[in-house]
Amino acid sequence: MAKYTELSTLGEFGLIDHLTRTIQLKNPSSRKGVGDDAAVLDYGDKKILVSTDMLIQGIHFDLTYTPLKHLGYKSVAVNASDICAMNGIPRQITVALAISNHFSVESLEEFYAGMYLACEHYGIDLVGGDTTSSKTGMCISITVLGEAAEEDIVYRNTAKENELICVTGDLGAAYMGLQLLEREKLVFEDNEQTQPDFAGYEYILERQLKPEARQDIIRQFREKGFKPTAMIDISDGLASEIMHICKDSGIGCNIYEEKIPIDYQTFKMAEELNMNATVCALSGGEDYELLFTAPLNAYDQLTAMPGITVIGHTCKAEQGCYMTTRDGNTFELKAQGWTNFSSPKPVEKNAND
Amino acid sequence: MAKYTELSTLGEFGLIDHLTRTIQLKNPSSRKGVGDDAAVLDYGDKKILVSTDMLIQGIHFDLTYTPLKHLGYKSVAVNASDICAMNGIPRQITVALAISNHFSVESLEEFYAGMYLACEHYGIDLVGGDTTSSKTGMCISITVLGEAAEEDIVYRNTAKENELICVTGDLGAAYMGLQLLEREKLVFEDNEQTQPDFAGYEYILERQLKPEARQDIIRQFREKGFKPTAMIDISDGLASEIMHICKDSGIGCNIYEEKIPIDYQTFKMAEELNMNATVCALSGGEDYELLFTAPLNAYDQLTAMPGITVIGHTCKAEQGCYMTTRDGNTFELKAQGWTNFSSPKPVEKNAND
Repeated sequence: MAKYTELSTLGEFGLIDHLTRTIQLKNPSSRKGVGDDAAVLDYGDKKILVSTDMLIQGIHFDLTYTPLKHLGYKSVAVNASDICAMNGIPRQITVALAISNHFSVESLEEFYAGMYLACEHYGIDLVGGDTTSSKTGMCISITVLGEAAEEDIVYRNTAKENELICVTGDLGAAYMGLQLLEREKLVFEDNEQTQPDFAGYEYILERQLKPEARQDIIRQFREKGFKPTAMIDISDGLASEIMHICKDSGIGCNIYEEKIPIDYQTFKMAEELNMNATVCALSGGEDYELLFTAPLNAYDQLTAMPGITVIGHTCKAEQGCYMTTRDGNTFELKAQGWTNFSSPKPVEKNAND
Repeated sequence: MAKYTELSTLGEFGLIDHLTRTIQLKNPSSRKGVGDDAAVLDYGDKKILVSTDMLIQGIHFDLTYTPLKHLGYKSVAVNASDICAMNGIPRQITVALAISNHFSVESLEEFYAGMYLACEHYGIDLVGGDTTSSKTGMCISITVLGEAAEEDIVYRNTAKENELICVTGDLGAAYMGLQLLEREKLVFEDNEQTQPDFAGYEYILERQLKPEARQDIIRQFREKGFKPTAMIDISDGLASEIMHICKDSGIGCNIYEEKIPIDYQTFKMAEELNMNATVCALSGGEDYELLFTAPLNAYDQLTAMPGITVIGHTCKAEQGCYMTTRDGNTFELKAQGWTNFSSPKPVEKNAND
């Protein structure tokens, strides 16, 4: 009988490592393959960054409460975010789309309107794709191409000891927005006469339904002549992303709970749902903010930039990856919640994530 | 009430036109967008070709009779074919994959082994991707990047009047292979004790399960210093592809039934199933051969190349698109079978197909 090993035994990143570890790049134009936010290709003056993301109905989105226009926007934004995470500028996308026959032309137009809006916002051209029918749910796969000069590209394995750890924006809001939508869905299923109550939670809803790639931050870096030493986008929660940088760079880290930027609405929703807002920031996912490291002497320059928070520092690998809590205790960081093939949580499992 | 227009009312290519007609390319690096086998990007010396294909379980493949290793190989080959159709060389792919939790690590390894085998065969690097869980079937989306010097790229809208129409290999075999597999599946469902009988039909099975991109032809063209005037790959059947070239180039055509290359096994299977082999070649799909046009004076050069057949010639648009049958009658060519959203037939609906 054929051997049968469950996918969940390898874990998310273990599975990707397992399937891709034998790859040896053959073409001179393939500069960097699997293992960062985007691949790096060399076809001339500028380097090309390429990344692919797939969004599946029932796993990554729920059409009960996700407007198709928002979904189209988000599909483009999360891909643009991977290019930003390499310190590049997104330029083109291709879109592969599977939809059921029950879709109307009008609903597909809504989805495209959202994609075009995001393309307009980020200066991206939609240059090709594939539309096919699906017997089951909707499936969206977008590949984004971006560009950067070789000297501008920032990888995730180039952080050093004794550097600053910084994040953009605030964290945990998208996950809290998702929890709110799920709660109101249950209420509605119980009693279809009730109207969802989102008052006071507009921000966390928008963070879930219409996230933005932080291209504004990348442009700000260029204007100010600043380049991070390592960078990644926060799609699977802060803890997972910090540990990617630390593992790949061969370093450790210490971050401070009190420094993690969390919005008031995120705190309020977490309290209402009896959850810990810090845990949401560490493990919630879908923030699409940037996590990066920088030399200590960049501190003044960074704290003067709007939207950037220093949350800790890197250290030797032997010291491990820790968070100092508000009450002064230390906790070892764990990349929890990424046993994706056994978990219903909408997490990304991305070779170029 | 919101307007509801069924997808089938627009037809396959109508839907793509409808959704993409407003696109205006903004980036200087976006040279050619939706509307050919691949997009053309300009990032330096060589031009970059990009194309995306999506394969959906239950629409494009049936895991009952498709070995996963073959499926992996085919997924890469059909993408490489789009780059060949532009007279380019495929270099990199990204792979987005959705699979159910029921998949084993071993079966996923089989799929990857097939992809790697095709990558090895075509000299392609797998540089990134996304693996996610699916609540329903398997979904594969591959984006391929290739390269070509600007002067080597061949589009589908550049055929002229009074040129030769040529195809590579033979046609209709992949479709006949599919019919055979479907027949044996029904037999097996009826009586699970029976073993499928494929004797004498190995070639058409291989054409369905393990098609090849005609990169060998592209290399031959380069060695011989030949460049087609227009080219497309045959993924949806000969009739549909000829009409793409004619419509986009503003010309007509006349092809000869007796010239269409069809393998003996294709004829034999068609006879067994009471089908017309020519109709299978015209409308069957999944051949992944190349259809191209060439100046009249290239006739001797082309007929000296192995694997190339001249099947007709182009003419003025007013003369229409016709086939002369074996008995001397003429039939107007129709791109049948592409009302994809109402048809169970596994056809591609590709903006860069």
